[in-house]
Parts: sequence; structure tokens; C-alpha cells
Amino acid sequence: MDHSSIHRLNDDDLLQEQQHLAQVVATYNAYRRSSILVLEHKIAAIPQKPLYDQVRARLHSHIHCINHNAHLLNLITSEHQNEFLQSLLPDNGQKDETDQHNKQSNKQSNKQLDKQSNDHSQKYTQLQLKVSDDYHITEGDLSKVQSTIRQFVRDWSEEGRVERTNVYGPILDFMNLYYAHVPLQERGEIHVLIPGSGLGRLVFETVANGFSCQGNEFSMYMLLASNFILNMPERAHEFTIYPWIHSFSNIPSAANQLQAIQIPDILVSDHVPPTVSFSMVAGDFIQIYGAPNQKDQWDVVATCFFIDTAKDLTQYLAVIKHALKPKGIWINVGPLLYHFEGNADAVEFTLEEVKHLITEFGFVIQVE
Amino acid sequence: MDHSSIHRLNDDDLLQEQQHLAQVVATYNAYRRSSILVLEHKIAAIPQKPLYDQVRARLHSHIHCINHNAHLLNLITSEHQNEFLQSLLPDNGQKDETDQHNKQSNKQSNKQLDKQSNDHSQKYTQLQLKVSDDYHITEGDLSKVQSTIRQFVRDWSEEGRVERTNVYGPILDFMNLYYAHVPLQERGEIHVLIPGSGLGRLVFETVANGFSCQGNEFSMYMLLASNFILNMPERAHEFTIYPWIHSFSNIPSAANQLQAIQIPDILVSDHVPPTVSFSMVAGDFIQIYGAPNQKDQWDVVATCFFIDTAKDLTQYLAVIKHALKPKGIWINVGPLLYHFEGNADAVEFTLEEVKHLITEFGFVIQVE
Repeated sequence: MDHSSIHRLNDDDLLQEQQHLAQVVATYNAYRRSSILVLEHKIAAIPQKPLYDQVRARLHSHIHCINHNAHLLNLITSEHQNEFLQSLLPDNGQKDETDQHNKQSNKQSNKQLDKQSNDHSQKYTQLQLKVSDDYHITEGDLSKVQSTIRQFVRDWSEEGRVERTNVYGPILDFMNLYYAHVPLQERGEIHVLIPGSGLGRLVFETVANGFSCQGNEFSMYMLLASNFILNMPERAHEFTIYPWIHSFSNIPSAANQLQAIQIPDILVSDHVPPTVSFSMVAGDFIQIYGAPNQKDQWDVVATCFFIDTAKDLTQYLAVIKHALKPKGIWINVGPLLYHFEGNADAVEFTLEEVKHLITEFGFVIQVE
Repeated sequence: MDHSSIHRLNDDDLLQEQQHLAQVVATYNAYRRSSILVLEHKIAAIPQKPLYDQVRARLHSHIHCINHNAHLLNLITSEHQNEFLQSLLPDNGQKDETDQHNKQSNKQSNKQLDKQSNDHSQKYTQLQLKVSDDYHITEGDLSKVQSTIRQFVRDWSEEGRVERTNVYGPILDFMNLYYAHVPLQERGEIHVLIPGSGLGRLVFETVANGFSCQGNEFSMYMLLASNFILNMPERAHEFTIYPWIHSFSNIPSAANQLQAIQIPDILVSDHVPPTVSFSMVAGDFIQIYGAPNQKDQWDVVATCFFIDTAKDLTQYLAVIKHALKPKGIWINVGPLLYHFEGNADAVEFTLEEVKHLITEFGFVIQVE
């Protein structure tokens, strides 16, 4: 799978992007130390009485869990991802266009990456990510890493299957029905765009169903984690994580909080047909897909838990309309839980108003 | 209904309490101005295009709604509540003991309050609440007022009936079953304590079922609002509020966001038997009911969405055990959504651990 960015930024912006990426990597790497510190404070605050023995024993087990989680997080930011980290930085002279329609399977691309890495191991040290001097890792940063760990469950574990069936199922069913007349080996000509692709499961499921698909994601946390899980595992169930140890409310028992989850449930490279293109683009949806070169490019835009991330949904609608081919289809699933709810410059439309907007933009609602 | 406080504080603490009460009153009074300001910014940010006509019209309707809400909030902090505000301040020389077992009905107490007010109208100006110089009303303060408005729906509207039946129903059913052998006119001898009584509906339902009941609440926002709704209305459906105008996510239509709610659904004074005592105590549950004079005082302690407000539940359990009569019963309903979740000095027990603690404290679980 190819990652690239089509941002064109000036030097200041580039520096800012580099610093942001450096901060995200630093936060991933700080997970173990920070989590152990928080845990130690918590354990130290527990009174030394038999009444608290069960709690104390449970919290001591967290150390083992944190170490497992940290192992995965360290791999996500390890030197093997340096080339990918490079690609996230805009206008670095290596790439500046999305390579949407490459016909390499993910497996081939993956192998190629490994080969390059072996041949040019000095590359590992080329990437100098410098965190700005006034940067401190906040609780908010760490909670993004914790949330990434939990999202692995939803997107890449057996335990997440029911939720995936409920959320991704209707999108995949609709595409398969709509293109039922297109033979599987020709579906690679149908290009699907998935904005807000998160950890990449829906993008993967789309290509596994024979379509070509491009994911787009803004969050560096998500981009690092999705690149890892899509490309790096060598077998299913390779990694064990403990996603629930940072939540303390409504826990039935210690066994629930200490539940181990194996990821990934499936090895991506085993399920990508050679007929598809499969890519991921880093950056802002409006900037990238509102650009002139994106006009009439996509057969399908599938938005899943995405449209409520807009400050003003009309901007997303304009871009979806712009990027879709004249007979293209838009599929949407998800709530209107506005990310910028209550912000002075956010416009939060009701469902009724959203439907009105959709028709104003010339869409015809086919199925609800 | 009687309100009083049994805190004993030094001068510094008293000043702090006065300032906090002053800030809460100031926040209630700032609701209209702040809400209109926020709304005006929001409306001004909307692009001047026909696409946004529906949103703009909807937001303009909010002005009317804010005015209605502000009318209620101003009554809550009006001069008619001055005597009550006085009573919230600890050790002010007027009262320093809870008057748990007074046999006045709420109606009588209410009338008495009105009479006093008429006789001594200069009393209205006696209460000088001074906000500290460095105090600014925050978004967090305002959200507490907004949340109070929404809680009126749950506790005191027709629309909240289903939720009340689900949450308060099991508690009332259990008390009625457990004391089925006690004739209604003798149930006033059974004393029920409800910590975290919020807007007072469960306290009211308990006395309406013939039991004597004392509510305990820590939040000044809740105390002001509950005193108002329990004592001041002259008829059912007297006030109209618009509780949903400050929420912007997952709204089906304008009609939903602009829904008018009438409160109260019932006039409290019509349903308080003359055989009960009915009181409310302001302050911290552990301080007040852990005091020596509270040992073995209560036949029933009913906690509803309360136990997860503890930093360390064992402290609540110790106080419940202390305050209950030897054969007393504790009834609990609610989740373990810990208020201090993740705090270094919070101990968050699992449900399994809570059950273990309960038996360690000598409780026997009768019904689950």
C-alpha cells in the first residue's frame, strides 16, 4: 500500500508539520514511562489495609499489560517505519502526488519496503525528528494513544467483529449490490474514496471485495498505527494488547479489565487481490480532494463516522460532489455527534437540515 | 421542608463558602447574558447564503427559549430565596442542627416561609453575597446551569416519567414491599436518608409514599434548584423551559431542539402527608453523616446514582453502616461511572470488588 501526501506547504508550515509528527512519535514512545508513573502514583495512594488487597493486586497486574501495549507502540514508531514517516512530511522532494492507481498488491509493496530497508540501512538515521523545545506531553496526547489502542480492538480483532458487521457491513453490502453486475476481476476499475479512514479496516475490506480504494486520514496517530497494522504484521494474532487497563468505570471484574486481545485478526497481505489499487493519503480532506486535479475522480465516496467532524458540513458536501464522477455514489453511515459542537464558528445541522442540504447539492437519496 | 446545615467551620472556611455560594448565584444570574452572547457569535459566524437559512432561523428562535430559561433561573435566585440562601451558609447563628423529625408538612412550612417574608421584608437585603474579585464565570460553570435545566426534565416533567419509573421505581417498590406491614399513617416513623438527592424528586416520592425522608446534597447548583421546585411553584406546569437548546449533536429536527417542557408535573405540597418529616441538608455526606450524632439514626439509606461520586467507596460504606440502625437497610441503584476516574488518589473498584467490600462491611445482599 502506498502512502503519500499532496500538500504543498511553505517552510514554516513544513517545520510545523515536522514538529507535530515528532511530537506524535514522542508521545507514542512516552506511553510506557508515563503509564507506569501514573500507575505507581495510583498504587502508592491506596491505603495499606487488607480491604484494598484485591484492588492492589489488580493494579499490579497492569504493569505486565502496559509492557505489552508499549511493545506494540514502540514497533509502530520503530526505525522500520522511517520511510513511511518521511512520506508523511510534505514536499520533501521524494513524492508529491498520490499514487492512486498503482496495481501493486499490498504484499508486493510491503516486500519492496523491506528490501529497500535492508539495502539502505543508513536510511534509518536520515529522519531527524526534533520535538520543539517547549513541548510537553499532555494527558490529552496520552489519551489519544490510549484511544488508538482501543480502536485496534474495533478494527483489527475477533472481538470487534460484531461492531464491524454493524457499521462497515451496510457500506460493503451496498457497494456489492450496486456493482453486482461487475465481475470481481474488473472491480479494480471502480475507485472508492474513504475519508477519515482511521485504522484502515474499511479500506481493507473494500479492496478485499475487489474494489480499488484510497483512504484519507488527518490524524498522525491514526496514520502511524494504520500503516503499521496494514503492512507490518507477519501473521494473524501476532500481537497481544490490553486495551481496557486505562478505563476504570463500569468494570464488572478484574478479568474484564485485564482482558488480552490479539491483533490483527487477519493478515492483510493474504486478502488483497492483485487487481486493485490500495493507497492511503495523509492530510486534510477539504484541501486534498477539493483540489482541481480531484474533480470527477471517484466512483464511490464512503463516509463512516466522518461527516460530523466538519465545522461546516456544506464544505464536505461540496468536496464530495466535486470529487465524485457525475454518476458517482456517496454512502454515509454514522451519527451527527459534532466534533466541534458548541464552537462559535461551527454550524451544527439537524438531521432534517442535513437531508435538505444533500438535495440542495444535487444528490438524490436512493436508500435510507 | 426544612433546609439546614450542621457544618462547623472556621472564619476562613465560612468566607470560602460564602464566596462559593455567591459565585453560584452569580452564574445563575449570568445565564441569559452569556447565552445570548454565545448565540450571537454563532449566528454572526454563519455565512450569508440561502443554504444556511434553516439553521439561521432555528438559532434565532433560541433567543425566545433563552429568555424563558432565564426567567426560571432568575426566580431560583430571587429575593424570595434569601432566607434559604442564608440557611446554606454554615454557623450563621440561626441554625446549626438538622431538624430531621419536624412534623410540619411541606405546605405548612412553605406558608410559614411566605409569612416570615412578608413580615420582615427588610430581610431580603440582609444577605450580602460578594463574589471574590478574581472570579470569572467559566464555560464549566455555565454548563452546570445548563445541566440543571436538563435535570428538571428528568425529575420534574411529564416527559421524564419513563426514566423516573426505571430508576426511582425499584427503590420505591422495594421500600413499599419491605414495609408493607406498616400502615401508611405510621410510616412517618420510618426514616429514610437519600444522599446525593439532586433536584429532590426521589425524596419527594419517598415522603409521598408515607415515609419520613431527608435528602442530602453537596452541589449549591442543585440545592438552589431543588429548594425552588419543592417549595415555590403554585401550580403544576407553571414554568416552561427549553432544555435542549444548548445541545447541537444528534438532533433529528428543529422541533426536537426547540421542544418546550412544562415543570413541575406535580405540585409537591399537594402530596406530602401530614404524618411525615421532610428535610434537606446541605453539605458533604461523609462529614455530616459520619458524625457521632448520626450513629444508628436511619432505617433506610437509599443511594441512587451516588456511590460512584466517592473517591474511595469504602468511606461511603463506613458512613452508611454508621448511620444505619442495626437492622437498617441500604438500597442502591446506579452505575459505577466514577466521578474521579483516573485521579491518582481515586480508588475505582470493579463491581465484583464492590460486592466483596459490601460483605466485608457486614452487609448481607438480600436482592440483586
